[in-house]
Amino acid sequence: MEKITVKAFSTSANLGPGYDILALAHNAFRDDLVMEKNPNSPYGSIKIIADGVPEEVEKNSAGLSLLKLFRHYGIKESVKIHIRKHVPIGAGLGGSGCSSASSVTAANELFDLGISRNELLKFAMEGESAASGSPHPDNVAASIYGNLVCVNSLNPPDAANINIGTDLGLLSIIPDVQIPGKTRIARSLVPKTLPMEDHVENSRNLSSLITGFITGNRELIRKGMNDSLVEASRLSMFPYYTPIRESALKNNAVGVCVSGAGPTILIMYDEETNLAGVEESVGHIMNGTGLSYRKTYSVPCEGMEIE
Amino acid sequence: MEKITVKAFSTSANLGPGYDILALAHNAFRDDLVMEKNPNSPYGSIKIIADGVPEEVEKNSAGLSLLKLFRHYGIKESVKIHIRKHVPIGAGLGGSGCSSASSVTAANELFDLGISRNELLKFAMEGESAASGSPHPDNVAASIYGNLVCVNSLNPPDAANINIGTDLGLLSIIPDVQIPGKTRIARSLVPKTLPMEDHVENSRNLSSLITGFITGNRELIRKGMNDSLVEASRLSMFPYYTPIRESALKNNAVGVCVSGAGPTILIMYDEETNLAGVEESVGHIMNGTGLSYRKTYSVPCEGMEIE
Repeated sequence: MEKITVKAFSTSANLGPGYDILALAHNAFRDDLVMEKNPNSPYGSIKIIADGVPEEVEKNSAGLSLLKLFRHYGIKESVKIHIRKHVPIGAGLGGSGCSSASSVTAANELFDLGISRNELLKFAMEGESAASGSPHPDNVAASIYGNLVCVNSLNPPDAANINIGTDLGLLSIIPDVQIPGKTRIARSLVPKTLPMEDHVENSRNLSSLITGFITGNRELIRKGMNDSLVEASRLSMFPYYTPIRESALKNNAVGVCVSGAGPTILIMYDEETNLAGVEESVGHIMNGTGLSYRKTYSVPCEGMEIE
Repeated sequence: MEKITVKAFSTSANLGPGYDILALAHNAFRDDLVMEKNPNSPYGSIKIIADGVPEEVEKNSAGLSLLKLFRHYGIKESVKIHIRKHVPIGAGLGGSGCSSASSVTAANELFDLGISRNELLKFAMEGESAASGSPHPDNVAASIYGNLVCVNSLNPPDAANINIGTDLGLLSIIPDVQIPGKTRIARSLVPKTLPMEDHVENSRNLSSLITGFITGNRELIRKGMNDSLVEASRLSMFPYYTPIRESALKNNAVGVCVSGAGPTILIMYDEETNLAGVEESVGHIMNGTGLSYRKTYSVPCEGMEIE
């Protein structure tokens, strides 16, 4: 095989109470990454052709994760990577994570390396730190495993995979703001300690959310998708979040959360939700902020497709 | 109907990382509570005949929860309650919770009150505070809902019910120690605050545990039944716990935890566990402490049976 194409989807981490634990892959956006062998290039080189993201290997999450994997496995061949980047960067939709995950997956296929998913997760996490400054596993785990993931451990990295099916629709509200160093700022706002009762309360929400996802119980998801810990600490970054959340829940949305470190807001809905009502109130709220925004409709999906 | 019998089973709360959230009903021990109308007695009176537990209504968790329910619903009849108490009190096996849960359940049936499970949970919780000093919901929720429960909220009290089936066996090691005020002491040892990374780590374990229980994945249960927060703070109360835990896991137990506030240790096993090896090492360890102990074998079950 001389060439491999990986289609990688957007992902949303945290989902309310699941900070650094839960993430969900969905088909709101898709990157295409084509990796081909490049025999005329110098020994072990990686060339990236991309639009809108850095082409310098060590500054690109696809390049950095691949570099670490090449070094670890002593890969001596050279590759050329074309990235058609559609998953937005800096929107809280796993943009850097899916690049990172798709490049190590493509190399695994192209060179028939037989690397396990957890090992791929490890390299992809390291690559993502190029973008966020700290390796965190949730988005890349959703890209590699697909659907809903629940990160079990960091060292060694491991995640459980939970299929929540496609009965839930996902409406993403993507404000047109770029906050430089956003993920670092968002992480710095999270309190360093918390009272035990907040831990118990948040763990109750997380338990309800996971149970709801696995058993398809919308009331448990609705009850569980509540976070007074991490989201609450970041409210100043997303002043539109609270009113969107309140109005969507009034319109019987299944759940509302900040997607990853934001600014995207993710609204889960089903056939009981008054979706027109949600859209109308989101329009009013976002117009009031003066920010332009996009919205997308999607469903949970596999993290990537390999061709 | 003039008489009702409720058979109520033992329960184990916390299960490692699920402090004040998870509890499991199992058939290690069973109480029988018989409630009958007592028309010759004064207006609204409650008479308790029991062995080994206080017969004074306000000091008995069955009596106190019933009193609160009678007052709330304005029940004007009188009852006599016979309790054959087999679930040990002060062992961390939900002894007071199952009395509390079975008396309100019996009254609900005897007077055909049509009270919801969550409402019964509320009164049973209040009754249990007679025993523990603070109303906590986990054991009583397991008694009322049966099998595995995941407490979602305290106010109003609510719990999700998860059937984990009977593929897991439960070995309870019950040291013959009575620690006066045990639950109060155990709760006072729990740290009042915790670092965010401990919260995330513990939430990861809890997520794995719940996912493992629901999907029947022993490796996820094994990974998830780890708690460095609450159990760790109480190790001085149960010096035999760490060696029992280590040796049981070496013998491929599915999981090991302190049952509720102890001193009982709960070992989950399946057909892959070297149960003889577990028993042998438990024997050595407990003999080394000089404490006598009982052991029981059980499986998850309904919280109570009504006849």
